[in-house]
Amino acid sequence: MADNQETILLKIKEQGDLVRKLKAAKESNEKGRKKNLHYNLPEIDEWLREYSYICGYEPSCSDIDLFNGLGINIDFQKYKYIKRWWYHMRSFNDSEVSLFPKLDSPKVMQKVKDETLLDQQIQEEVAKLLALKAQLAPEDAAPQKFSLKTPKGTRDYNPQQMSLRNGVLDKIVAIFKRHGGECIDTPVFELKDVLTGKYGEDSKLIYDLKDQGGEILALRYDLTVPLARYLAMNKINTLKRYHIGKVYRRDNPAMTRGRYREFYQCDFDIAGQYDPMVPDAECLKVVTEILESLEIGQYVLKVNHRRLLDGMFEVCGVPADKFRTACSAVDKLDKSPWEEVRSEMINEKQISPDAADRIGEYVRLNGGVELVEKLLKDEKLSKTKAAVEGLEGVKLLLEYCELFGIKDKILFDLSLARGLDYYTGVIYEAVLTQPIKIGNEDQTVGSIAAGGRYDNLVGMFDSKHKQVPCVGLSIGVERIFSVMEAKLAAGVISVRTNDIDVYVASAQKNFLEERMKICAELWNAGIKTEQSYKKNPKMLNQLQHCEDNGIPIAVVLGESELKRGVVKVRNVTSRQEDEIPREKLVEELKARIAALSVKDVNGSA
Amino acid sequence: MADNQETILLKIKEQGDLVRKLKAAKESNEKGRKKNLHYNLPEIDEWLREYSYICGYEPSCSDIDLFNGLGINIDFQKYKYIKRWWYHMRSFNDSEVSLFPKLDSPKVMQKVKDETLLDQQIQEEVAKLLALKAQLAPEDAAPQKFSLKTPKGTRDYNPQQMSLRNGVLDKIVAIFKRHGGECIDTPVFELKDVLTGKYGEDSKLIYDLKDQGGEILALRYDLTVPLARYLAMNKINTLKRYHIGKVYRRDNPAMTRGRYREFYQCDFDIAGQYDPMVPDAECLKVVTEILESLEIGQYVLKVNHRRLLDGMFEVCGVPADKFRTACSAVDKLDKSPWEEVRSEMINEKQISPDAADRIGEYVRLNGGVELVEKLLKDEKLSKTKAAVEGLEGVKLLLEYCELFGIKDKILFDLSLARGLDYYTGVIYEAVLTQPIKIGNEDQTVGSIAAGGRYDNLVGMFDSKHKQVPCVGLSIGVERIFSVMEAKLAAGVISVRTNDIDVYVASAQKNFLEERMKICAELWNAGIKTEQSYKKNPKMLNQLQHCEDNGIPIAVVLGESELKRGVVKVRNVTSRQEDEIPREKLVEELKARIAALSVKDVNGSA
Repeated sequence: MADNQETILLKIKEQGDLVRKLKAAKESNEKGRKKNLHYNLPEIDEWLREYSYICGYEPSCSDIDLFNGLGINIDFQKYKYIKRWWYHMRSFNDSEVSLFPKLDSPKVMQKVKDETLLDQQIQEEVAKLLALKAQLAPEDAAPQKFSLKTPKGTRDYNPQQMSLRNGVLDKIVAIFKRHGGECIDTPVFELKDVLTGKYGEDSKLIYDLKDQGGEILALRYDLTVPLARYLAMNKINTLKRYHIGKVYRRDNPAMTRGRYREFYQCDFDIAGQYDPMVPDAECLKVVTEILESLEIGQYVLKVNHRRLLDGMFEVCGVPADKFRTACSAVDKLDKSPWEEVRSEMINEKQISPDAADRIGEYVRLNGGVELVEKLLKDEKLSKTKAAVEGLEGVKLLLEYCELFGIKDKILFDLSLARGLDYYTGVIYEAVLTQPIKIGNEDQTVGSIAAGGRYDNLVGMFDSKHKQVPCVGLSIGVERIFSVMEAKLAAGVISVRTNDIDVYVASAQKNFLEERMKICAELWNAGIKTEQSYKKNPKMLNQLQHCEDNGIPIAVVLGESELKRGVVKVRNVTSRQEDEIPREKLVEELKARIAALSVKDVNGSA
Repeated sequence: MADNQETILLKIKEQGDLVRKLKAAKESNEKGRKKNLHYNLPEIDEWLREYSYICGYEPSCSDIDLFNGLGINIDFQKYKYIKRWWYHMRSFNDSEVSLFPKLDSPKVMQKVKDETLLDQQIQEEVAKLLALKAQLAPEDAAPQKFSLKTPKGTRDYNPQQMSLRNGVLDKIVAIFKRHGGECIDTPVFELKDVLTGKYGEDSKLIYDLKDQGGEILALRYDLTVPLARYLAMNKINTLKRYHIGKVYRRDNPAMTRGRYREFYQCDFDIAGQYDPMVPDAECLKVVTEILESLEIGQYVLKVNHRRLLDGMFEVCGVPADKFRTACSAVDKLDKSPWEEVRSEMINEKQISPDAADRIGEYVRLNGGVELVEKLLKDEKLSKTKAAVEGLEGVKLLLEYCELFGIKDKILFDLSLARGLDYYTGVIYEAVLTQPIKIGNEDQTVGSIAAGGRYDNLVGMFDSKHKQVPCVGLSIGVERIFSVMEAKLAAGVISVRTNDIDVYVASAQKNFLEERMKICAELWNAGIKTEQSYKKNPKMLNQLQHCEDNGIPIAVVLGESELKRGVVKVRNVTSRQEDEIPREKLVEELKARIAALSVKDVNGSA
C-alpha cells in the first residue's frame, strides 16, 4: 500500500510538471482570449453524484444533448459519476430515447469558458501535489477533499436531540412493558428474498447492499417483516414483543416534517391464535396510553376493517383483482381531496366512474357504534359476506374499547385504508387533530401511530404454510421527535444533555492531584462527577461550566480549607457555600442529591 | 403487477404441460437406465450463493474445471448465483488463471445422474404450478421458497438475550453518565468517501451499499470515524460523548466467541485540547469501573504509547515507512507466539532479521513505573525523541492512575500495539486473565475493552486541517454478551423477559368484560398488568402462565366474590390468597409491588 520515499519524490516531480503545464496553458489562453465554451465537467460530476439524470429523477432530452455533446473522450478515472451516468445512458435504445420528455435544463448544463475549467483543474492538481508532499511528512497529512455531510435523508442526533429522543423512547418502552411486551432485535439487513414481494409498489424504495460475493442483502424496510421471519424461522406461535430500531426507505425525504430515509420505528405486536378483537383492542389501548403520556396534543384514533373495505369495493362493482389498488387510492384521502382520488381511480387504476362514485358515498362516512348498526342494515353491504364480517369485527372492537375506557378517542372511519398489502383485519391510525407549529409555520403532522391485523404474513415464510395471526402497532416517533424539537427550539421545553450532579473545582493552582483523588472517591460512591481536564483552570470558567450545563453542586477546593480538613460545597444556583468536613463529603453530597431529585419530581420537569 | 385470472389460468396450463413433459422424460430415462452424469446445478447455485468460489474464498482450478464443463448453455434466469460467478470467472485472463491453486473440491462438484436432477426439477416446477394455482385463491397463497435465516455472521436477539443485553448496556451507560458523557447518534451508513483511507488493510471488510443512483454509501465500520466526521462537520472542539450502536464488518465470523459481522460498539470519547494524560487517565478509570460493575472476572488493563513504539522501531533499525506495518505485526503477539510474528516481520514485511530480533528484546518487557524509569535510562531509547516522549507520557499516566486508585489494574506492556492506523498517543486494552467457559470449553475471551489517543483523525475531515485531539475507549460488549449467555445457558444466572407484576385471571367463564375493566384500571394506575386474550381461559393455564413468566401476583375474579364486592389477590409463589375489597385493589397491589421491589434489591438479582 505505502509508497516509499523515492516513489513519492518521483510522483511529486511528475505532478509538479503537470501543474506547471496547466498554468502555462492558462497564461497562453488569457493572452489569446479565446471564447471556447465547454461543459463544466467537475460540476456536472458533482451533480450526477446526487442525481440520476440531468433534470433530476427521470431521463430527458437534456441527457441526450449532454451525451452527444460529450462524445467519448471523457476522463472516467476522474469523473466517476459521469461514468456511471454515461454507461447507463448508453443502455437506452433509440425507441426509448424518442420518448424522453423535454425538460428545463438545470444551471449545471451551462457551458463555461476554458479558463474556469482550467482554474478548477489547476486547483485540483495543486491539491494533489500538496497531498503527495504531505506523504513525505505523514504527521502533516493533507485533509481529504469531499463534501462533509451525512447521506441524503439522514441526520446526526446531537446530545440535545438524543436527550429528547431517549426521553420519548423511555416513556414508550415503559408502556410497552406495562402491557407485558418482551424485547427482541433483528439484524439491520436481511436476505433480499425475505423482503421481496412484501411491500407492493414501495419495493423500489428498498436499499440494496452491493453484491460483494456471498449473500444478496438489503436493509430492512420495517420491523414487521423481520418479526414475521423471526416467528416462522423459530417456529414461535405466541409472542408479545416490542422492537425499537431504525429502518430504511429510499423515499424523497421531507426532513422538516420528520420524514427521513433512516428513521426509527417503534413497534408492539401480539402474535397468537386468540379470541376476536381482544388483542386488537389492547393495541388501541396501548396507543392511547402512549399518546397521552407524551402530551403531544389532541388526537383521534381512526379504525376500519380490511374485510369491510373488500365488501365495500365488491358492492360498488370493483373487480376482485382491483381491491388492493383501490385500497391504495382510498389511502390517499388523508392528503388529497376526494376529487383527486376519484380521478386517480378512474384514470390510473381503471375503475369505472360509477364504481368510483359509489365508493365516494361510503368513504365520507364516519362515526361510532350507531354507524356500524346503520351499515349492518345497508341493503347491499348486509348481503355481502366480507362486509358483514368486517362490520361485526368493528362492532366488537368498539365494545371492548368502551370497556377499556377509550371509546371517546376512537372514530370508525370508512376512508381509512392503509397502504400496506399485508393487512387482513382491523386497521387503525392516530392523527393529531390540531396543527403543530414546526419551524415557523403551522403544519398538519398527520399520522403519529398506526397498525392493524395481518394474519397471513408469517405463513408466507413457513415452508408448511403455517399461519400465525398477528396484530400490531407502530408509533411514528420521528414525527413526535420533530414536534418536540420544534418545542425545544421555541423554548417551550428544555433538556439537560448530561446528568452530572457534582463538579470538583479548585480555587487555586496546583490542585489537579487533589481534585483527581476526590473525583475517584465520588465516582466510586456512584456520584455523577466531573472536573476540568486542565491542570490549572480558572475559577470563573469552572463555575461557568456548571451554570452552562445545569450542574447543581460544586465542590470547591482551597489550600486553607484543606489544611483545616474541610472543603466548600457550593449550591450553583443560590451560590451559597458551606464548609463540610472532608471525611463527610460523600455523605453530605448524597443527601444533597437526594433532596434535589425529590424537588425535581415535585417541581418542574 | 397483479395478473388477472385469465393470464394466471394460461400460465397454469403452460406450467402443467411442462410438469407432464418432465415426468414423461423421467419415465423414459428410467426405462433406458442411462448413466449420463451431470453437474448438480441447483446445489451448485445454492453453494455459490454463500461462497464466492467453488473452494470457498479464493479462485482455484476447480472453478476452471466447472467453467469449462458447464459451457455456455446455462439457464441464468434460474441459476442467478452461478450467473454471478460465471461472469466473474470470465473476467480473469489466462495469466491470472494459470496461477490458480489446485485445491480439494467440495462435495458440490460431484456429478449426479440425470434422474436426481430431473426429480429436483420436477419438484421445483410442481412447486411453481402450486404457487400459480394459489394465486387464484389469494388468501391461500403459496409460501415462499428460500432458506429462512439471518444473513451470515448476524443473529436475532430473543427476549432472554435482549434482557441480558439491555442489562449490560444499562450498567455501562450509567457509568458513562457518571463521568458526564453526553449521548449522540449518527446514521448507520456514511458517504463511502468518509470511510475511505481510515482503516488500512481492513478497508476490504467494509459493507458497500448498491449504487442505486444518488450517493455512494457504505455501512459504518466503527463509531470513531463517524465521531470525527461529526466533530469536523459541526466544528465542535470539545465533547465528552458516548455512543452505542451497531457496526458492520465483512469479516469471517466466529459466532461462538462473540465475533459477528453485525455487532454492538459501545464507545466513550473525550475530544478537546487539554493537559497531557488527564482525560486519558479518566478513560482508564471508566474502563475499570465498567468491568467491575459487570463482575465479569479478573482482568488486566495493558497500556503502551504509539510514540514509544515509533521510537522503539527507530532504534531497532526499522525504516520509518515500515513503522505502521511493524506495528500491525507486533499487534498479533496476543494471539501468536513471537517466533511466528518474527517470521511475518522478516518474510512478509521485509524487516531485517537483526531489527526483528532487537524488537523481540523490547516487546517481551512489561511492568510498572520501575520499567519506565529503566527504559528512560536505556542507552538507545533515551537518545530517541519519540521514545522519550512516549515514556514520559506513560510515566505521567501511571501517576494519575495511582491517584485514581487503579494502579494495581494497569500493566505497562511493550508488546501492546493495536491494529488501527489512527492512534497517535497512549493505547490500551483490557484482557480477562482467566479463561471463561463458553459452550463446553474453556476459552480465552481476549480483549474486552480497548482504546487510545487519536489526535489527527478529525483533521483529516477538516478543510482547513484543523485538529481536535481525542482519546477514547470501546467496550467489547459482544464478547461480554457471549460470556453472559454462556452463564445463562449453564444456569449460573437467570433473567426475566418481561416486567409484569400482576396477572388478571378469572375462575369462571364469561369474565372477559370484567377482566378488561380491571386491566384498564390497573394500566391507568401504571401497574404492569397482563391477562389472557381468550374469552374463557382455563384457570390452570392462567396460573401456569404466571409461574412460567415469573409474574408474582395474580388477581382472581369469581362470581361470588364480585357479588360481595371483593376480589382474590394471590401470591403466585406461596399460593396464598387474600380477599381484598374491589375499591381498594389498586392501593393494595401498589403496596405489594413496592414490598416486592424492596425484597428484590436486598435479595437475589
